[in-house]
Amino acid sequence: MFITKEVTFDSAHFLTDYYGKCERMHGHTYSLQVTLEGEIQKNGMVIDFALLKQIIKNRILNKLDHQILNDVVENPSTERVAVWIWNELCDVKKLLMAEAGDPNMDQNIRKMLKKTHFEKTMRLYEIKLCETTGSCVTYRGE
Amino acid sequence: MFITKEVTFDSAHFLTDYYGKCERMHGHTYSLQVTLEGEIQKNGMVIDFALLKQIIKNRILNKLDHQILNDVVENPSTERVAVWIWNELCDVKKLLMAEAGDPNMDQNIRKMLKKTHFEKTMRLYEIKLCETTGSCVTYRGE
Amino acid sequence: MFITKEVTFDSAHFLTDYYGKCERMHGHTYSLQVTLEGEIQKNGMVIDFALLKQIIKNRILNKLDHQILNDVVENPSTERVAVWIWNELCDVKKLLMAEAGDPNMDQNIRKMLKKTHFEKTMRLYEIKLCETTGSCVTYRGE
Repeated sequence: MFITKEVTFDSAHFLTDYYGKCERMHGHTYSLQVTLEGEIQKNGMVIDFALLKQIIKNRILNKLDHQILNDVVENPSTERVAVWIWNELCDVKKLLMAEAGDPNMDQNIRKMLKKTHFEKTMRLYEIKLCETTGSCVTYRGE
Repeated sequence: MFITKEVTFDSAHFLTDYYGKCERMHGHTYSLQVTLEGEIQKNGMVIDFALLKQIIKNRILNKLDHQILNDVVENPSTERVAVWIWNELCDVKKLLMAEAGDPNMDQNIRKMLKKTHFEKTMRLYEIKLCETTGSCVTYRGE
Repeated sequence: MFITKEVTFDSAHFLTDYYGKCERMHGHTYSLQVTLEGEIQKNGMVIDFALLKQIIKNRILNKLDHQILNDVVENPSTERVAVWIWNELCDVKKLLMAEAGDPNMDQNIRKMLKKTHFEKTMRLYEIKLCETTGSCVTYRGE
């Protein structure tokens, strides 16, 4: 089963190996869809959407939203940003454990995490990143 | 070839094994995408969208729309509702035959059905269920 | 990695082997998603979105937008139009080379093309065509 959480972020960027308007600083409201694959657990969920959102916020949005993407990713084409996001999130089980140990996290989510035994099969399946509604990149780590 | 019909329904639910706001009765405008896989037939279609919509209406919306999901599905997380919908629709060829025998069905669709020889390969491929725009589950029966 | 470009076009059509309202001339704002699969090149992109859009414009929109689809595709169901689009775009590397030789094309895109060595693995992966928001066909050439 696949679980997808979609968020948006607003960032500036420019391409460094391009002829045309994209070589000038500009920006997008990016749409990001993060999809995990895993089994349903006893509580009826693969993963709480709120927890997945928190991981995306901590690991991705806090670094990319309202930033110049060139400060984080070299030559930040949509393709290269998608690969960067994949690499940040690909060890998803480790990230979940890190969230569980964060003293600032939501107490209810922490209670949930303590009860949760994430299936061995849970993994990051796909990153879909759109720089506009009609211009998207899909990356599965291959 | 894949055929996808998307519908929405408005239902209440609460989670029974959860700490946090989702344990309180609340609701969503769910978006449901039903995807079949099949071959194009002589009339140019895999299946008439109107017929697929009627099956979804009869088998899913009539049971879930403007209802408390907990009365139909135990602990109705998006994951568990998606599995329930899959099980309701998975024998799609049998459902089509049942529609053909329903005296109340649209006469034009009935005429179409009489002419139709559904390919052996037609099957339910995927259920995608979103409880909000950005929180979705995709299930392929595995 | 997958690259998707979405466009819309507004066309009239009627079905020729159908009982019901779709046998009358009517129309849709179709949404078309074209997905290529390929490797990231040195410039950080699989293919420039602007170039993919130009190919879709030249090969598809110029033939289908604000037209009667029946003049182009026999019995133009969504399924049959999707197959027609697939066949128009499936030799995508040849189309890219043709764009590079077109004297009317955008000079910046031409400069990009001259620098580009498209990977052997680049291919058309998927056509998704929706005749309304909730009625879609997905075709992968099989």
